[in-house]
Amino acid sequence: MVFMHLLQFRDLVQIALKEDLTQGDVTTDHIFTNELATASIITREAGVVAGLDVAGEVFNQVDPSIKIEKICLDGTAIKPGDQLMVMAGEVASLLKAERTALNFLQRMCGVATATCAAVRAVGDTKTRIVDTRKTTPGLRILEKYAVRMGGGENHRFHLGDMVMIKDNHIAGAGSVTEAVQRVRQHARFSVKVEVEVTTMDEVEEALTNGVDIIMLDNMSNAEMAAAVAHINGRTWVEASGGITLERVRDVAATGVDFISLGYLTHGYRALDLSMTLKP
Amino acid sequence: MVFMHLLQFRDLVQIALKEDLTQGDVTTDHIFTNELATASIITREAGVVAGLDVAGEVFNQVDPSIKIEKICLDGTAIKPGDQLMVMAGEVASLLKAERTALNFLQRMCGVATATCAAVRAVGDTKTRIVDTRKTTPGLRILEKYAVRMGGGENHRFHLGDMVMIKDNHIAGAGSVTEAVQRVRQHARFSVKVEVEVTTMDEVEEALTNGVDIIMLDNMSNAEMAAAVAHINGRTWVEASGGITLERVRDVAATGVDFISLGYLTHGYRALDLSMTLKP
Amino acid sequence: MVFMHLLQFRDLVQIALKEDLTQGDVTTDHIFTNELATASIITREAGVVAGLDVAGEVFNQVDPSIKIEKICLDGTAIKPGDQLMVMAGEVASLLKAERTALNFLQRMCGVATATCAAVRAVGDTKTRIVDTRKTTPGLRILEKYAVRMGGGENHRFHLGDMVMIKDNHIAGAGSVTEAVQRVRQHARFSVKVEVEVTTMDEVEEALTNGVDIIMLDNMSNAEMAAAVAHINGRTWVEASGGITLERVRDVAATGVDFISLGYLTHGYRALDLSMTLKP
Amino acid sequence: MVFMHLLQFRDLVQIALKEDLTQGDVTTDHIFTNELATASIITREAGVVAGLDVAGEVFNQVDPSIKIEKICLDGTAIKPGDQLMVMAGEVASLLKAERTALNFLQRMCGVATATCAAVRAVGDTKTRIVDTRKTTPGLRILEKYAVRMGGGENHRFHLGDMVMIKDNHIAGAGSVTEAVQRVRQHARFSVKVEVEVTTMDEVEEALTNGVDIIMLDNMSNAEMAAAVAHINGRTWVEASGGITLERVRDVAATGVDFISLGYLTHGYRALDLSMTLKP
Amino acid sequence: MVFMHLLQFRDLVQIALKEDLTQGDVTTDHIFTNELATASIITREAGVVAGLDVAGEVFNQVDPSIKIEKICLDGTAIKPGDQLMVMAGEVASLLKAERTALNFLQRMCGVATATCAAVRAVGDTKTRIVDTRKTTPGLRILEKYAVRMGGGENHRFHLGDMVMIKDNHIAGAGSVTEAVQRVRQHARFSVKVEVEVTTMDEVEEALTNGVDIIMLDNMSNAEMAAAVAHINGRTWVEASGGITLERVRDVAATGVDFISLGYLTHGYRALDLSMTLKP
Amino acid sequence: MVFMHLLQFRDLVQIALKEDLTQGDVTTDHIFTNELATASIITREAGVVAGLDVAGEVFNQVDPSIKIEKICLDGTAIKPGDQLMVMAGEVASLLKAERTALNFLQRMCGVATATCAAVRAVGDTKTRIVDTRKTTPGLRILEKYAVRMGGGENHRFHLGDMVMIKDNHIAGAGSVTEAVQRVRQHARFSVKVEVEVTTMDEVEEALTNGVDIIMLDNMSNAEMAAAVAHINGRTWVEASGGITLERVRDVAATGVDFISLGYLTHGYRALDLSMTLKP
Repeated sequence: MVFMHLLQFRDLVQIALKEDLTQGDVTTDHIFTNELATASIITREAGVVAGLDVAGEVFNQVDPSIKIEKICLDGTAIKPGDQLMVMAGEVASLLKAERTALNFLQRMCGVATATCAAVRAVGDTKTRIVDTRKTTPGLRILEKYAVRMGGGENHRFHLGDMVMIKDNHIAGAGSVTEAVQRVRQHARFSVKVEVEVTTMDEVEEALTNGVDIIMLDNMSNAEMAAAVAHINGRTWVEASGGITLERVRDVAATGVDFISLGYLTHGYRALDLSMTLKP
Repeated sequence: MVFMHLLQFRDLVQIALKEDLTQGDVTTDHIFTNELATASIITREAGVVAGLDVAGEVFNQVDPSIKIEKICLDGTAIKPGDQLMVMAGEVASLLKAERTALNFLQRMCGVATATCAAVRAVGDTKTRIVDTRKTTPGLRILEKYAVRMGGGENHRFHLGDMVMIKDNHIAGAGSVTEAVQRVRQHARFSVKVEVEVTTMDEVEEALTNGVDIIMLDNMSNAEMAAAVAHINGRTWVEASGGITLERVRDVAATGVDFISLGYLTHGYRALDLSMTLKP
Repeated sequence: MVFMHLLQFRDLVQIALKEDLTQGDVTTDHIFTNELATASIITREAGVVAGLDVAGEVFNQVDPSIKIEKICLDGTAIKPGDQLMVMAGEVASLLKAERTALNFLQRMCGVATATCAAVRAVGDTKTRIVDTRKTTPGLRILEKYAVRMGGGENHRFHLGDMVMIKDNHIAGAGSVTEAVQRVRQHARFSVKVEVEVTTMDEVEEALTNGVDIIMLDNMSNAEMAAAVAHINGRTWVEASGGITLERVRDVAATGVDFISLGYLTHGYRALDLSMTLKP
Repeated sequence: MVFMHLLQFRDLVQIALKEDLTQGDVTTDHIFTNELATASIITREAGVVAGLDVAGEVFNQVDPSIKIEKICLDGTAIKPGDQLMVMAGEVASLLKAERTALNFLQRMCGVATATCAAVRAVGDTKTRIVDTRKTTPGLRILEKYAVRMGGGENHRFHLGDMVMIKDNHIAGAGSVTEAVQRVRQHARFSVKVEVEVTTMDEVEEALTNGVDIIMLDNMSNAEMAAAVAHINGRTWVEASGGITLERVRDVAATGVDFISLGYLTHGYRALDLSMTLKP
Repeated sequence: MVFMHLLQFRDLVQIALKEDLTQGDVTTDHIFTNELATASIITREAGVVAGLDVAGEVFNQVDPSIKIEKICLDGTAIKPGDQLMVMAGEVASLLKAERTALNFLQRMCGVATATCAAVRAVGDTKTRIVDTRKTTPGLRILEKYAVRMGGGENHRFHLGDMVMIKDNHIAGAGSVTEAVQRVRQHARFSVKVEVEVTTMDEVEEALTNGVDIIMLDNMSNAEMAAAVAHINGRTWVEASGGITLERVRDVAATGVDFISLGYLTHGYRALDLSMTLKP
Repeated sequence: MVFMHLLQFRDLVQIALKEDLTQGDVTTDHIFTNELATASIITREAGVVAGLDVAGEVFNQVDPSIKIEKICLDGTAIKPGDQLMVMAGEVASLLKAERTALNFLQRMCGVATATCAAVRAVGDTKTRIVDTRKTTPGLRILEKYAVRMGGGENHRFHLGDMVMIKDNHIAGAGSVTEAVQRVRQHARFSVKVEVEVTTMDEVEEALTNGVDIIMLDNMSNAEMAAAVAHINGRTWVEASGGITLERVRDVAATGVDFISLGYLTHGYRALDLSMTLKP
């Protein structure tokens, strides 16, 4: 399973902790001295887990002496009442880390849960669910990881790791052909080339230019089915453009290879988790 | 109007741009040279604006020669089709900044819009809508600003700027009285003291100890009305605990001074904005 | 006791060590290999301790294998010859950390000692000693902590955690009333409002507007006594403006609740500490 | 005249501003909109100026549209009532920058003023006043610059730019001779070698080993005079060890080349400056 | 032409300048006040230009008032005596920036020049020259850009933007087939899959598994020609493994699509450039 | 032996790892789970070792559970096939760290090896080999350390730690005398003064002004011999200006004290090292 490396999120955790602890904790530090306790993170609703290592790093940065045990793994489906992780250490440390750990974990579980719902909706088709670059500024690496934990796949990480020729690029170059050729001349061989099309003529032009992926943008289901039939496996096909969970099964039925869903990372809801404390 | 200072978000914008431009833009840089264009950010749905300066800073960091004009102000209500801001400059720069600018702006407008809905729901009462610390890691300052733009108010910014005695603190200290007294002994005079209570006995104990705010946690509307009547203006009263937009009007009717809503910052949806380009 | 969290000063320690070790140590590294020793930090004058954890972090960052033992606690009164902390490890590491550790510790002890002197001077009154924002750039969190260790309390940490309406604000708004009302309209409920006044008329106006604290700025002792009598417990009263240790007892006798002293953080002297080494 | 480069202090100014403006300014932003004013920084006591560019950078970072005019230069002697610099721009920006600008400027002027007093005290001798590494963590570059502005000179900037063999090094190596030889074998040719001595035997040993500077540590004036006579110009001679302003003239009279004074950077008082505003 | 964005190298320039200017310039600042001059960067040997914007940013960070004019463009071939860029401004600023600007520019020109030599050597074939991840720590983005300016192409930027199955991966998985299948199951669709092979059996296995690129590792020219013939255009073919400039033409003659050359970034020589000053 | 402190290169290692692991490792993470192995770094060519601690820190940052054993020490001469260090831990971690560790280590060994060759070439003379400021941006501290490990010495670390009066400074001041005097007036006593000369007249002028070092710039061997004879030990003498390994022995024979070689840090080749893995 693809995991994230601590190097990728340690700084993020530090930034988040500085938001909350920049002046210490005026409540907890006055009430507790060195009492010990065990804390559990529990879910109040069903979902998919993502982010346990990130939450663990929050506790670790607040107090390296806290013992952390994961009860499940990222990618696991959970139901109300399930434990996700258990922490043991000083009460004061546990309380200071609580909100920041949950802020990360609830969001990441939210993304994984939303992704899983979409993946299940298309589950009996060959279509795969992918994300977009519509991610929370600063948290892209975490949200894309959570998409994977929910069973989805990642589209571009940034503007430099794949060519994506969109309407403005085509307009700027004059035609799909010209745009693809300009890019091909310079782009490194390891990047794939995707073109966004809105008409069957553009589909044909993209095919002629040998692109790797054709993205059908904001087409009706019927148009997509026709495009898929015409392309007939010569390139991969991606459906995109404001597709909702309700519609995702029907879009998959058109035979597209991928459906990219912006809402996975900009329209999700944090999963309802909480931390309970036992002395 | 309270604004944010550039010092508070310039680094955030830089982090976000590095996510997207770390290896340049393999599409745009091959297609455009120095063509100029005008771009508009337009909304496809109704909402409240927040974050224009943040979006502007994205364009400015990508290319300081881009001219930026705000068409409306943060805090303004917008309807589908309204323009929010207009940028003029090189096409390549506009396209590179587009996604990051929208990622900030759509989220901030989303928070402001959600807040505004809650504020309107309680609009004929004296009750005020406040946020929580359940914010996106790293973006607290932006989300709390967006709450203000939506007509809400900000609760604690971090663990150090107000005393908030919660159930675990009370359990740790033994009683509300003991907890308040421990804190009072040390906390600086400029912080207010809030206590989270779940029973009328705790309400009474909090009143006896002269706290500034009493938070009624997860009470029924009837319980809250009774508590408000008993407190009778001697302290401020805050309602909290999983309150939804549907229920917010009824909670306000109990007479509480504040309703804090976690969903404003962890359950909002990004507003549907887009950028269009004209040569 | 309110402590500082490592997250609040770890970066500061790193900045300071980089000042001193950016090119290594051209003396120590040539003379020592891996000889071991025990080092003590000892005071040559009486004072109050603050900053042992910060000094400890300096040794820890230079060489994590150094063993550190605190002989006393922050807040303790010390007399000439007293040991503060003992470190055991490689001589070379101890010598490299020495100056930076002392640079932090001597200053923090200096602030705590100056604060303690003022606290003792007003010791038989109800008046409390508070600090200001006149702190060393970058070290505010450390100096304010040292004030607490000396028995003082902290005033504002920054411009955002309390409203303080000063002469320029009143002049800008036109009157105390207008200034308070403008601020009240927007400031979040958790911040207190303080107004700086120079005349009895302004005192009255502040009272009418229900502010939380009235600051008497640069008044004579007689004027302050009159103001305190007039206010008569309706708000807290703070005395401010170039008050010296010599005058602090008399100011307290006027009945003010707080005396804020800028010199605690901008006019203190580093305590005379030194580190001795035993093989 | 040796100035500091913006690259050396821009980050420091940013750190300091984040201390004060991390949550904005809850007072100023509610009262002022875009009123303009002129502000002057004025001294209430006599001293020597240092740090105008640093203070200017504070205003510049808060609001680049503020116009800044220096009325005098760093190194200038000032008397009560003198203007140091004038700023023109938005009132709100001027007020937000005020405290941080003064916090830098008052400290730097304090160092320059203390240095100037010592320089004047030895003014009719050939002895030069130098600083130490006993500087405020993070501000070394600023304080050492201020020493130069006060007419002093800088000793080591850090552990890597000069060899300084002290008592612990001599003890570790076994003798002055052994210590010097170990260092000479490795240290780069561009660094000078200084040895701290406490007896005439060590003076002789240092001379034999051809060091560049001999530091007389905590000697009486008579001992120093004897050592200077014995050295007789063969190396430079530095006096060090708790020397006060009162004693500095007599130490100079012993004929030493340099007197290093720790109190210049750890025992100074911030100069009493203030900012006044005119609409 | 693909350029680098300022966001990608601004921090690098700052790090480099801090190396050189951390304590100012003890020579230049004493000799010059505000004399003006024009400076040219000139080459003493033939080569290819890369890095003018990086050098320009060095001058700009040292002194934003310096006027910078590029005489040629990145990617241009230059001969001894040619001017690359001209700067006008204060002498002191020009001298302070000189070494750091040259340190960047000479290295980047060195990489471009080495790349160009290899590209020319294979110029009459279809083979393309690519780089590796054997780059200078911290400067990868600059060196890969310089490769492009020399006419080469970029291979992977990092471990996350392409699958590269090497000998240790094959050994770990048990076979090429198993390795490819494990990776295919998880890797996002936008990354290509390359396999490093050393035998014809592995070539066949890679073909069967439908990889995008086959890398022939440390094969003789004859073996490579045989592999290319066998693959027959079904995938791209890359030659790798200690290939020198002398051998590159013969390797290209085997018909491989790409030759990757580690020495482009770890065995190049800085181009001999210098800066001259005219008052 | 002078070592580098972890504080000096930990950030550099982090920057380098972020270049390579910013999106994880799409190959290794899919193929390995928690298999263990031992890895050796071995050299394929003769040279001198430098940078083992830096390479070790790379492995440590990727995975703190990796056990690291140094087989030789920095400064050791190695021959083809020799082991430098051995690491034991998870295969996935070893593979992720491999390239970055080698990128540091190969370059540092390259510098040490080049330096050692020059040191040996002048080995029977009193002349010492020194480096320059022509270092890789960001890696100066590492390259200068590697020079020491190769038996060379370090010249200036930056523009602030020694006075170096070059042609442009002399032209700006009007004469060597004027330049030296201007600098002497201000420069701190701990820095040495070096002057670059091109004629015997300038040699004489430098001697008259009592500089510490005279640098003979781009002179013929005969001119250098004459200058050395004239100076006759009154100052140190440095030869500089495009001196190659071939010529270095003859230059040493002129009697100069130091030869500075830019190519040590800008013209070296990475040593050919590799990492092998055993399960």
